[in-house]
Amino acid sequence: MCLHTYQCFQDVHVMIFVGFGFLMTFLQRYGFSSVGFNFLIAAFSLQWATLMQGFFHGMHHGKIHVGVTSMINADFCTGSVLISFGAVLGKTSPVQLLVMAIFEVTLFAVNEFILLTILGANDAGGSMTIHTFGAYFGLVVTRVLYRPNLDKSKHRNSSVYHSDLFAMIGTIYLWMFWPSFNSAITNYGDPQHRTAMNTYYSLASCTLATFAFSALVNPEGKLDMVHIQNAALAGGVAVGTAGEMMLTPFGSMIVGFLAGTISVLGYKYLTPVLESKLKIQDTCGIHNLHGMPGVLGAVVGAVTSALASPAVYGNGLQRVFADGEPGEWNAQSRGGFQAISLVVTLGMALIGGLVTGFILKLPIYGAPPDTHCFEDGLYWEVPGEEEGHHELNEVATPNETEKLNS
Amino acid sequence: MCLHTYQCFQDVHVMIFVGFGFLMTFLQRYGFSSVGFNFLIAAFSLQWATLMQGFFHGMHHGKIHVGVTSMINADFCTGSVLISFGAVLGKTSPVQLLVMAIFEVTLFAVNEFILLTILGANDAGGSMTIHTFGAYFGLVVTRVLYRPNLDKSKHRNSSVYHSDLFAMIGTIYLWMFWPSFNSAITNYGDPQHRTAMNTYYSLASCTLATFAFSALVNPEGKLDMVHIQNAALAGGVAVGTAGEMMLTPFGSMIVGFLAGTISVLGYKYLTPVLESKLKIQDTCGIHNLHGMPGVLGAVVGAVTSALASPAVYGNGLQRVFADGEPGEWNAQSRGGFQAISLVVTLGMALIGGLVTGFILKLPIYGAPPDTHCFEDGLYWEVPGEEEGHHELNEVATPNETEKLNS
Amino acid sequence: MCLHTYQCFQDVHVMIFVGFGFLMTFLQRYGFSSVGFNFLIAAFSLQWATLMQGFFHGMHHGKIHVGVTSMINADFCTGSVLISFGAVLGKTSPVQLLVMAIFEVTLFAVNEFILLTILGANDAGGSMTIHTFGAYFGLVVTRVLYRPNLDKSKHRNSSVYHSDLFAMIGTIYLWMFWPSFNSAITNYGDPQHRTAMNTYYSLASCTLATFAFSALVNPEGKLDMVHIQNAALAGGVAVGTAGEMMLTPFGSMIVGFLAGTISVLGYKYLTPVLESKLKIQDTCGIHNLHGMPGVLGAVVGAVTSALASPAVYGNGLQRVFADGEPGEWNAQSRGGFQAISLVVTLGMALIGGLVTGFILKLPIYGAPPDTHCFEDGLYWEVPGEEEGHHELNEVATPNETEKLNS
Repeated sequence: MCLHTYQCFQDVHVMIFVGFGFLMTFLQRYGFSSVGFNFLIAAFSLQWATLMQGFFHGMHHGKIHVGVTSMINADFCTGSVLISFGAVLGKTSPVQLLVMAIFEVTLFAVNEFILLTILGANDAGGSMTIHTFGAYFGLVVTRVLYRPNLDKSKHRNSSVYHSDLFAMIGTIYLWMFWPSFNSAITNYGDPQHRTAMNTYYSLASCTLATFAFSALVNPEGKLDMVHIQNAALAGGVAVGTAGEMMLTPFGSMIVGFLAGTISVLGYKYLTPVLESKLKIQDTCGIHNLHGMPGVLGAVVGAVTSALASPAVYGNGLQRVFADGEPGEWNAQSRGGFQAISLVVTLGMALIGGLVTGFILKLPIYGAPPDTHCFEDGLYWEVPGEEEGHHELNEVATPNETEKLNS
Repeated sequence: MCLHTYQCFQDVHVMIFVGFGFLMTFLQRYGFSSVGFNFLIAAFSLQWATLMQGFFHGMHHGKIHVGVTSMINADFCTGSVLISFGAVLGKTSPVQLLVMAIFEVTLFAVNEFILLTILGANDAGGSMTIHTFGAYFGLVVTRVLYRPNLDKSKHRNSSVYHSDLFAMIGTIYLWMFWPSFNSAITNYGDPQHRTAMNTYYSLASCTLATFAFSALVNPEGKLDMVHIQNAALAGGVAVGTAGEMMLTPFGSMIVGFLAGTISVLGYKYLTPVLESKLKIQDTCGIHNLHGMPGVLGAVVGAVTSALASPAVYGNGLQRVFADGEPGEWNAQSRGGFQAISLVVTLGMALIGGLVTGFILKLPIYGAPPDTHCFEDGLYWEVPGEEEGHHELNEVATPNETEKLNS
Repeated sequence: MCLHTYQCFQDVHVMIFVGFGFLMTFLQRYGFSSVGFNFLIAAFSLQWATLMQGFFHGMHHGKIHVGVTSMINADFCTGSVLISFGAVLGKTSPVQLLVMAIFEVTLFAVNEFILLTILGANDAGGSMTIHTFGAYFGLVVTRVLYRPNLDKSKHRNSSVYHSDLFAMIGTIYLWMFWPSFNSAITNYGDPQHRTAMNTYYSLASCTLATFAFSALVNPEGKLDMVHIQNAALAGGVAVGTAGEMMLTPFGSMIVGFLAGTISVLGYKYLTPVLESKLKIQDTCGIHNLHGMPGVLGAVVGAVTSALASPAVYGNGLQRVFADGEPGEWNAQSRGGFQAISLVVTLGMALIGGLVTGFILKLPIYGAPPDTHCFEDGLYWEVPGEEEGHHELNEVATPNETEKLNS
């Protein structure tokens, strides 16, 4: 284990609790829930993940080994749950979220075991295990939980000025520490440096693409905060598999540029179609930030693996590809296993999300009514506005609240 | 000194300046003062602490040795002052705060010298030296400064929506970096890893207990931001002494669960009684976050010490208990010294707080009048509201301000 | 390269993206642009800087070597651009900012090459290369772009309550991580420790001076958020050159105290004069935070170099002064080269800023009209206020916007 492991853990920890937590505070009346439920389900998931991951691939003589590495892996698994949280944000009760976490963490650990241990896939930054899995799992859950009358809460499903600034805190922290995220569990030395740098270049390029396309797709040439907050991060997702490979700075920048582009275009053109045609109500647009860029990352990883050779990696080949004995190296089969891993991940996510979605649909969890989605007041004591604070006058009136509680 | 010391210093530094600073911004009209005075007294205290701690236990040949370790210790001492600041928040002038810091830092250094050097106590995360001392010192100071007419400012002694979100920045940073805080000055290697992990598990468990009890004690089952912002951190306080010992993950989680529980119950049931019966006006509820969990941590530390044996720690015993020669080890006496340390700390805090409180009561520091507590406008140029900004229309009217300044 | 390099990189990265980004959110209606354009030009500049710095002093056999050190250096160069951004904040379009970055990064790399490689100057924390260069470059640019009718947007050129709190996030992060900034590319070991500690003491002292003078220069003794947000950081700027030298803690504190004092006095008395007499509209007051403290830092560095001797540094002399062979050491000439470096930097900044300013004055970049400076609505989709959010009712009315876009 490398010397920097604890630092990487802290960077990843910041991404999970500050990054995801504040990224979701963009909703005008759901800030307490965004950062608070993020805190709750993260603190729960990391404990449950320690057990599940330990059970599947951390057992030694009947005991689960814990340490900084297990803490990083638990944070990774938690990240996957928080991605799914983004799809159902504002439409679920905390109990629903905890039940979702129980199932998703368990399936994450199973999928991770299949990919990393059985198929021997490379996925250090989790394009497949974290992003693709979390995104499609969450999308299926939100599909099952489809609310035809969600437009009754539509007026709250948007941001206000300062809530967008709080969300930028999340964005910037995710952006800055993504190199640590992707490199946290790579091998120390060259692979770790390469991963951090590939991620850094991909993100920088992705950010420029995001600003450019955000202005291009707007009739007045104005920038959209939703794109900046989200699409600028897609570059980190898309090098999550291939980051530790010989992607080169230029290759990383191309991947980042593509990721930012498809992410902005997804927000602009695909998300409305998913909602109207496929009945997928994706609050945070996780399909654009984690879904498509995750699949892109998996494909880039498969292609880069299939092109790997001792001539390119030298003695470093074995450090990147666990089974890469220089003599018996078979890049094509390596690429094939990467592609199979993507298919397995998508299958696990879709079936797991389907089952979990139906479990969450049981009317026993205190889910918010259609008229009170995206509203902190249902689950939190929200401060009043006697002191001339006018931002909050959209809260349910006392009569409505009585009705809800009766 | 370990390789990671500078990183631990930075983590602790973030807790002191961002963590404490923003945690206290929850008040609707006291954000400038919370983060600003926190900045001021922290920057002052760390310089004064370097001198005081150097004088008591950092002198070598008549010179004070400074380095990353002294910077961490100065931050620890500063943390204690900021805890006391939480009790008097909104009711003191900056001059009063600086005077309080002068006395508190000095007494902190004396108490630390008695505990660590004379009694040989273990207290790496400062359950006693930092939290218990800072909390009871501050509670006595605020008792001496009791304001019978504080209800004239009662309408400002609460949060607004966005001020609670700013406070969550502080909470989350304190929560994430607490493992670094508790392990910053433990011995490198196993003890440091163990401390970080025990703190991590305690915090995770504490957070779940906090959410659960916050909902349980509310008649409508709603969560209270005050609990989430504060009680979720009590798990870090409560393993501040025993964290480097063989507490085990499960033991840490029990301690964290207890800490979160008593902290929420304290906010709900004890704080109102302390105010009405004992005349202790504790703005931030430090008794619930630092006082009771600190004492709990000291007791857990004493018990864990009394149960320590070479059979459990192996060769690591000496690394944890400085005087622990395996042959002549006496766990009972070790536990006894820990218990004595708690008593000494409480005595120092109570007497020191009493004397400091009366010094602060002298009418020479420009303390705010009862009608203008929890109000930035007294000490800061507060931006106007010409631009349609309606949040601030509770500021003292020009007439009132004139009266105050005349 | 030292073991901590990646950590230093992350600390510097946080300063660039969170520190600078949020420090500039103080304007009431320019938060999206402050943090968003900061993000954009930083992501652009670090890529361009990697190429330019690589071209001038990172080429090996025709290839540019990249790594954590090149990432830190790119962040340093980016910092310089962001300083200049502070002067023109609210008065430039994103295209203008990108064009400015292209020229400024290039000239930064040339100036850095002259100072560090040709003149062999010491400037690890960049008092000259980053702060003096960025400040005077930006001041000349804003002078060339002088807007006589800027008072049409005057009502937006100020803060509101919560925007000042967002800005404090930036301030606190810059303050905490400045020791990492100044020591990031010093030699590992003693010089790095010395730099971090000198910076830490300078900042602590500077903060006290800032609070004291902010109250002293106010007729009512009130503190001004502008001073706290900015002047408290001047201590980090002013030890950017001499930080790795034998400045001693006490010497650092004197430098920090001076820096805080001149910075507050500059905000209070000099900035209005610069605007009215010299037609320099310096939105963030970079002359007070980076300009004067940067020059002070260069002078302190020259004097400290001129006083250096093997008697003081022992075997460490060579580690600090690259050309410092103990036998042939000539401190006076070292001090002279430092002084020449300051003059070269000022010359490069003034001429470069002049040329860049005239290029930016071409009417092809979509610069905001005088009536719509300091206004997000021109370049961003700003959320509406249907939900009772009254902060934003100052936006251009539809009619005005139509006129602007036609």
